[in-house]
Order: sequence, then structure tokens, then C-alpha cells
Amino acid sequence: MKRMIAALLLALSMLPAVSTADDQDVIDYRRHIMETLKVQTAALGMIMSGAIPDDNVVAHMDIIAQTASTALKAFEPKVEGGDAKAEVWAQWDDFSARMNEFAERTATMSKTAHEKGKDEALLQAMDALTCKQCHDVYRVKKPTGP
Amino acid sequence: MKRMIAALLLALSMLPAVSTADDQDVIDYRRHIMETLKVQTAALGMIMSGAIPDDNVVAHMDIIAQTASTALKAFEPKVEGGDAKAEVWAQWDDFSARMNEFAERTATMSKTAHEKGKDEALLQAMDALTCKQCHDVYRVKKPTGP
Repeated sequence: MKRMIAALLLALSMLPAVSTADDQDVIDYRRHIMETLKVQTAALGMIMSGAIPDDNVVAHMDIIAQTASTALKAFEPKVEGGDAKAEVWAQWDDFSARMNEFAERTATMSKTAHEKGKDEALLQAMDALTCKQCHDVYRVKKPTGP
Repeated sequence: MKRMIAALLLALSMLPAVSTADDQDVIDYRRHIMETLKVQTAALGMIMSGAIPDDNVVAHMDIIAQTASTALKAFEPKVEGGDAKAEVWAQWDDFSARMNEFAERTATMSKTAHEKGKDEALLQAMDALTCKQCHDVYRVKKPTGP
């Protein structure tokens, strides 16, 4: 019996380490990513409006592009909840196409910033950062004040 | 008189566009940057703990390094308030040295991830992300629960 348990424990210890993400972890993780997009876009917006000097403008573009590239993966586990509507998974083809397009456009913006300068890239920013179009369809509406 | 006003307006219009950041803008802007560090470090931590698969791990490291490179600039305007203690500016040499070290260590972590792989880079993460050491000195303490 002891030998059987030892063999079982050994077998268990040799299983590959599998990441198991419980539902709340999945929701928290994608929140972290979407929050990054929110605050980095806000920071970029403050520069675009002239409220803040533009020293970091290219870095913000890079960060947005990098973060956009991580976002779809965070929604792949079909875990409803948080701010995500069920439509995310019910219309996965559309959702993922839009997310990929978002990643591509922000990557182009970032590339433009490095190759042609920030002014050229800023012209693409308005076109790349169309957050609202997806949020209207796929994000739970926030209550609009009292 | 009309001609003088016209000349004055013309002269004004030829001044370089200077970004003026009022105090709340400065505080909001640095909050966006520190919030990015917070949520991206949380996301990386979720991966390190095994709660979330590691598909995005290198991207998180890149984003943290990029964001760290923007942080010091956001504190350069001496605007007290938000979560920043007055010590940030009273001890600017120490604060900026620590911020620069943070940027360097996270840049090294990101470089390692690309050149030697994520496992090597994760070994550096604990050493690079020592947020608490600075927060203890330079960030206003949050009230600890009810």
C-alpha cells in the first residue's frame, strides 16, 4: 500500500505543471489589461490635448500597441463576468477580428512613431484608438450617475 | 490701434505652442503611469503564481520596462498632491536615482526575456520589481481597512 502511494505521488509530481486559472483570476487578469489600455490612452490623450508635454508620447504608443497585442488572449477563456458582455463569446469571430484589427492598427501607429516620427503617428492615433466602437457592443454599460 | 492689435495677434500666433499642464493634469498623468505599473505588475504576478498561463509574459515585461522609462518624467514638475509625498521633491536626488535604477532593472529584465528567454527573465523580475521599497518612503500610506 505504502509503495502504491509513493508511486502515485511520484507520478503526480512528474505531471507537467499546468496553470489553472479560476474564474475570478481570468476576470482580474483581463481587467488589468483593459485598465492598462484605459490609463495609457488617457495619458496619450492628455498629451494630444496639450495638457502634458509630449516627452513620453512614443513610449505611450508602444505601450498601447504592446498591451493591445496581449488583450485577445486574455478573453480566450470563456468566463463571463466583470465588464464583459456574453456577446464577447457569442460573437467571438467578430470580437476577435476587432481585437486583432485594434492590435494591428496600434502596432502600425507605434511603427510609424519610430520610423516617421510622433507627428505622423499622432495622425493615426485617432483612427487606431476607437475604443468606444467595441465597448458599445461588448462591454457592460456603466450606470450613468445618480 | 487696429494695426497694433493685428500685429500683436500675429506675434502671439507665431509663438511656439507651449504645453501648459495645470496641477491636476500633472497629478492625473503620473497616476496613469503608476496605475499602469500596478496593473501590469499584478498581471505578471498572476502568471508567476501560475494563476494565468504565461502566453503574454514577455509582453508584460516589455510594457513594465517601457512604462518605467516614462515614470520619472511624470514627476519632474514639482506638483505635490495625489499619492506622492513631499519627500519626492525634497529628496529628488534619491528619488530620481531610484526611479532610474528601476527603469534600468526592468529594461534588463525585458532584454533578458528577448535574448535568453522568459525563464531567465523571471529570475530577474523579483529583483527588478521592488515597488514597496520606494512606496514606503515616497507614497502616501493608504488607510489600512476599517
